This record gives sequence, C-alpha cells and structure tokens, in this order.
Amino acid sequence: MSNLLSTKPYKGTRDFFPEEMRFRTAMFETLAKTVESFGYEKIDAPLIEPLDIYLAKTSEEIVNQQIYSFVDRGERKVAIRPEMTPTVSRMVAQKIRELPKPVRWYSIPNLWRYEQPGKGRLREHWQLNCDLFGAANEQLADLEILQLACEIPIAFGANHNDFSVQVNNRRILNSIFEKKLNLSEEKWPEVARILDKRLKIAESEFEQMLASAGLSASSIELLQDYLQNGTDFLQKNDDIDGVPELLSLLHNLEKSGYQNFVQYAPGIVRGFDYYTGLVFEVFDQNPENRRSLFGGGRYNNLIGNFSKDSLNAVGFGMGDVTFAEFLKLHDLLKTPPRQMHAYIAMFEGEELNAIQLATRLRKSGLNIETSVGAIKLGKQFQEAETKGYNFVILQGSTEANNNVVQLKNLSTGDQKSVSEAELLTIFKNA
Amino acid sequence: MSNLLSTKPYKGTRDFFPEEMRFRTAMFETLAKTVESFGYEKIDAPLIEPLDIYLAKTSEEIVNQQIYSFVDRGERKVAIRPEMTPTVSRMVAQKIRELPKPVRWYSIPNLWRYEQPGKGRLREHWQLNCDLFGAANEQLADLEILQLACEIPIAFGANHNDFSVQVNNRRILNSIFEKKLNLSEEKWPEVARILDKRLKIAESEFEQMLASAGLSASSIELLQDYLQNGTDFLQKNDDIDGVPELLSLLHNLEKSGYQNFVQYAPGIVRGFDYYTGLVFEVFDQNPENRRSLFGGGRYNNLIGNFSKDSLNAVGFGMGDVTFAEFLKLHDLLKTPPRQMHAYIAMFEGEELNAIQLATRLRKSGLNIETSVGAIKLGKQFQEAETKGYNFVILQGSTEANNNVVQLKNLSTGDQKSVSEAELLTIFKNA
Repeated sequence: MSNLLSTKPYKGTRDFFPEEMRFRTAMFETLAKTVESFGYEKIDAPLIEPLDIYLAKTSEEIVNQQIYSFVDRGERKVAIRPEMTPTVSRMVAQKIRELPKPVRWYSIPNLWRYEQPGKGRLREHWQLNCDLFGAANEQLADLEILQLACEIPIAFGANHNDFSVQVNNRRILNSIFEKKLNLSEEKWPEVARILDKRLKIAESEFEQMLASAGLSASSIELLQDYLQNGTDFLQKNDDIDGVPELLSLLHNLEKSGYQNFVQYAPGIVRGFDYYTGLVFEVFDQNPENRRSLFGGGRYNNLIGNFSKDSLNAVGFGMGDVTFAEFLKLHDLLKTPPRQMHAYIAMFEGEELNAIQLATRLRKSGLNIETSVGAIKLGKQFQEAETKGYNFVILQGSTEANNNVVQLKNLSTGDQKSVSEAELLTIFKNA
Repeated sequence: MSNLLSTKPYKGTRDFFPEEMRFRTAMFETLAKTVESFGYEKIDAPLIEPLDIYLAKTSEEIVNQQIYSFVDRGERKVAIRPEMTPTVSRMVAQKIRELPKPVRWYSIPNLWRYEQPGKGRLREHWQLNCDLFGAANEQLADLEILQLACEIPIAFGANHNDFSVQVNNRRILNSIFEKKLNLSEEKWPEVARILDKRLKIAESEFEQMLASAGLSASSIELLQDYLQNGTDFLQKNDDIDGVPELLSLLHNLEKSGYQNFVQYAPGIVRGFDYYTGLVFEVFDQNPENRRSLFGGGRYNNLIGNFSKDSLNAVGFGMGDVTFAEFLKLHDLLKTPPRQMHAYIAMFEGEELNAIQLATRLRKSGLNIETSVGAIKLGKQFQEAETKGYNFVILQGSTEANNNVVQLKNLSTGDQKSVSEAELLTIFKNA
C-alpha cells in the first residue's frame, strides 16, 4: 500500500499508551477515592445529547464557536457534550422526586470543545464533576463543595503553598450592578465579562472598557473599591445581596480549618451563565504557573430547564489536562509501575507446559505474562527485561514432572529451582 | 419556563444512575483484573478519528449505514469510533519499532453505531477490546486469545453449560472458495455473507441464495458437507489452507483444558473484512437466549494501513450490553452495595461540629456522608435510611467537648455513646 494513513491522533487529542494510562488511572483513582469518602456516588451518561440542552445556559463562546454539533441520520440536532453540568441536571430532573436528597454525584466524562490546542487546552479532556443537589442548607452545601475542592489536591499531598481556592458570589456583583451602579439588566453580562478579563489586561485598558460600556467615573471608582479592598468593602456594604452569605461562608471555612486554602477574590466571575450564587476558581500558586486549575459554583436554576420541580445545586468540574500538569509540576504523582509478577519463557516443543503453568499461577492470584512461542531463550529473557520484569520462570516437561520451576532473577542473574508452592510464597511476600 | 426540555437520554443510549454504575464498575473491574492477569496493559484513545481509518477495512454496513461521521469546524471528515480495532492498530503502528513485543493491550472504550435500538443493541455501548500483536508464534497467540475469551466468563463463575466459544479460520473458507468451488475472488464476500446468514434462514432459502449467487449443485453440496460434518470434513480435506492450523489449535485447546468450552464451528464467518485467519464467536448456551455474546479473530494486515512495517495481530471486542444481559440471565453478578460507613446528622446551631467530625473520620479512612443542614433529627435519620445507611452518628458541642459521639444503629434502634477511637475500631472491623 503506497498511501499510508496517518498514525497521529486527531488534532488536539491524546493517545494514552500504557504508561500515560497508568498515570491517568492513578490520578482518577485518587480523585474517586477522595470524593467517595464524602459520599459522592459515580454516575455516567451518553456522550451525545440533544443540542438544546446547551443552548439554554452554557456560555455563548462554547455554543457558538466550540461545540461539536451535527445532525444525526434521523435529523436530530445533537452535540458531543462540551461540559457535564446540563447532563447531570437532566438526570436529576428525570428522577427528581424519587432520588433521596441530598443528591451527591460525581462523574469523570470526556468532553469535547473545538479549541486551538495549547498548554492545558485540548479538544478532548476528561473532567471530574462533583455536584450536590437539594441541600436543606445551601450555605453548608457551598462549604462542602469548597472542602472537596481543597481535599482533592490535599489527597495528592499538596498544601496551601501549592494552590489557592478563590471564592466570590455572583449575587454580590449583580447587586452592585443593580443597586450601586443602576445598570439595566441587559448590561450585566457585558460588564461581568470585562471584570472577568481584568487580570489579563492593563489597568488603563480595563477602565477604558468600562467607560466604553457606559459606566460613569464614580461607578468605575466603586468597582475599583470593590475589586481592591476585599472584605473591607463587603463589611462597609452589607446591604449588598450575597454579602452576609459570603462572610458567613468565609467564617465557616475558617472554623473548619480551611482558612489557609480559601480566599475571597472579588475578581472571580466565571464564564458560565447559569451560576446564581457561589462561584470559585482554584489557582496554581507556583509563581511561574499562576493559572486556573478548575472551578465551579452554585446553579440553582438549571434543573428548571427540565422540570417544574426545582432543586438547589452546587458543584464543580476539574479538567484532567491542567490538573495533571499541576501534579507533575509540584511532583505530587509519579507514574506507577505495572503490577506484574513474572514473565514465563518457553522451551521449544514444550510451549504447552509453559501455558499450563501460567494458567495455574493466574488461578492462584498471580499476574503472569508469557512469551508467545519458542524463540531463543536469550531473546525471551531480553523480552522480559525490556518489559520491566525482574523475574522469568521456566518449566519444561522435566521440571513439570518434578513439580518444580526454574526461577531466574534478572537483576542478580541468580537462577534456582523452586516448587510451585514456594513460587507462590515468594511472589505473595514480594 | 413553559417549554421544558426532555429529561430522557438520546435515543438508543443509557443514563447510568448510581446503581447501574455500580453494576457496570463491578463488571469492568472483573474484566480488567482478568485480562491484567495475562499481562494486558490498559490503553485509551480519542473518541473521534479521521473517517479514513474506517473506510479501509471496517464492514460496509457499519461505514455506510451506521457510522456517526461529520465534518468538523476545520473541514476534516471525522467519525465517532464505531469500533476500536482501527484505533488500536493506528497506535501500534505509531510506535511499531519501539514497543516491546509481544504487545498486549486492552481498552474499554465507548463506541457509537446508528442502529435501530433493540435487545442487546444500542447506539452507544462500551466494549472490552483485547489485542495481542507481534507474537513469534501466531498459533500460540490464537490459543491465548481463546483462553482469555473463556477465562472472562469463567471469572464471573460461568461454566461450559453457560457459554460456548465457536472457532473457525477464514483461510479455510477462502481456500474452499478458491480451490474447491473455483469462485473468482470478487464473489467471496457475497458467498461469505450468505454463509453468515445460514443460522437465521431456512435450509431451502439458504440453498436458493447460493444458487442465485451462481453456485452449482455440486458446489452447494460441498458447502453443505463442510458446514455439517465438522472436523470429519477437515480431516478428509487437509489440503485446504488453514486446516492444519485449526486442527492444531483445537489440539492445543484440549491440552490446555479448554475442550469443554471451545468447539469448531464451520458456520462462523464474522462480518469484518479485515480478518485473515482465526475467527470466533462466543455464544450464550441458555436455550432461550442462544445468541452471540462477543467475538474476534486474527487481522494480520490492518497495521499495514498505517505502517510499512507489518505485525501480526489477534484480538476480540466484547460489548457491555449483551455481556451484562448474559451475567444477569445466569445470575453471575449482583449490583454491589455502596461502600459507605456512616451518615452524620446535625444538631441545629452545631452544624460545624458535625462537619469537623466528618473531616476527622474521613482522614482516618472512613467514607462519611453528612446531612446538609439542621432539619429535624427524625428527618435526617430518615434520609440516612433511604440512602441505605445502617449507622447514624451525632456529635453536638457537649459530645465534642467529651470527645465522644452518639452512634445509632438504624436496624436495631440502639443508640450508644462511644469515643471516636472506638468508632474507628467498630467500622474497621465491620
């Protein structure tokens, strides 16, 4: 064949060879263990959803420029999920009356966005989603979600020098827009987007954009006061909606031992339109990599797209690409080795002895890989070494008749004859 | 909102609520454990591939009627993977020289086909793929793949009354077509498809279809001889290509203890065009459900689409839908319970005590879910019971000061005061 097909994966995606897969599996296992210790239960859902469920509330940028949508063979408009929150909301709405509350769910779906691939940004990524629905006390639910956001990096050994959770409340900003700046509601998203950009642009450009959006000098001054003076501004302005909740949340976080991990950050806005209260973002604290690792917030109205019953909701989504880079940068997770016991080599003409031995050892709980065919023994030892094995086992018909095997230690070169029973003891204690 | 969005998943797909997810996770864990005991390493790959890689060798039915393909925002023709074998072959080809041979890989991807949903057939399914590349001895590789196909149901407790592995070799049929029937090569796929249908149609219809395809009466008689007389036909016709290999494979299976699980079945053809030798299908043996559970075979030429180097290959794909139905029908896997220790209820005004206690218990290795807010205690006990908890823990400030908790057993109604240290002992021994 002269025209070979490309062996590369589709642009902006990754192949996971065994080594990369072991890293990913180890990462996901720790994530799962951590969120399960809080009682979160794993769910999953189809990769494809009706396009409709994203049109309602997902950010404009995602729907217009990034979503993978198409028309199926039955003329349905569908999309490959760009995020999991609408799907989770759909599922909760489906069983809203029968599900025991509070509902605590997590999932680790793969998500697709048509992005220009770059550092930390790919077209396909996996994302840990944790969501808590139907809490009797929303304040305590917000607290738990932030605890989780802290406990996940902590589970890998990170401390407060490695990451920082920055919290805000959407209602504060909306209330400032409404009560302090007297902005009409159509203007809110535009001004919110300018605030969201603040850290990426110069101060002068920031003020100019606000002026272009129609804000007076005194309004801009008030926004600067809000952005620069932290909780001092809040304490002076406790008539603003959301301020008492935020101050109480910060108090609860302190009482629960998370004061070094979580800070109030008035600049946090978050791109999704469905947030209604708490919003937060987790940042890498490495001075050379101060970027957002993941984030989330409260979205009390999303269920309402699917059900007449309502249910409060708070949660977050954590992408595997940025989080894996965080773990590697801070040296918090190494790729674990293969969990294998021994490689079995074969004598020519006595291959079935080796295969029968392998079956017996596997039934005793060992992980056993065999050579596949009687190439020269030296080459089989090499195979085992290249694959990272320390032990090679040999059993021809003579050994089989005596119920023993030859056990070769590749690192020391030692070879000895042991019984199959002894072999099990050696590996179970290794 | 008056127009509510549907809460149902996309047609032909499944939502996995926690209970279904626990079943799926338990099933996948046993699959993974079994194939890992043979040294298979887990890989994964992007969901989307260039459409090209399916045009070459995947079955016509899949490419023309079932594939989910579309043009991306960059004008690339892409497809959501309908099967994993082309992807695995692409990945092996990408690192063909550096990968230590033999290569043993597995994956459990989700796959998409636009099918009319029905029993055992959905648009999205997950599929265990196991593949063995670059064996020195292809016969032994075929043997190992068949061992695996047997050991997977066996790992769930199935025996030879539950399932049967039916094997054939594509070369035998091709050789009969060429040498015995003198069919031109273009005719082979048509006749193969008629053979593949044989079990689903009446004898007379079968013979009529062969006649319509241009086969003479003596050719039809020879095919009937082939189909009906098992290894007797093979032993009489050992000049046919593939016969010695198949007889030797059956011998090896017998010597390895699989004679009750594996049978020669001349009717097995398999739909994919890329098979070059061994083909097999695993059937449910329940008289009311004698359908194909999964299958595979040898595909030595697929790597050649991606690389000038060649590498022999054998493997199979096992779908989760039919296999889960098999496990349920034969009562081989029950949905495991949640792995949780206790539910913590909260006294009003002392919620933070409860949250701090939960954190301490989690750090000691327990899985602890809390109520979220001080609704009435009775309602919190009910919450715990509905969620399946046996134990509820209470700790107000008085208990906290004395370093004890109230432990309530919901099934007996007993409530007692124990220290936190005792609590750990109780749950670790439970």
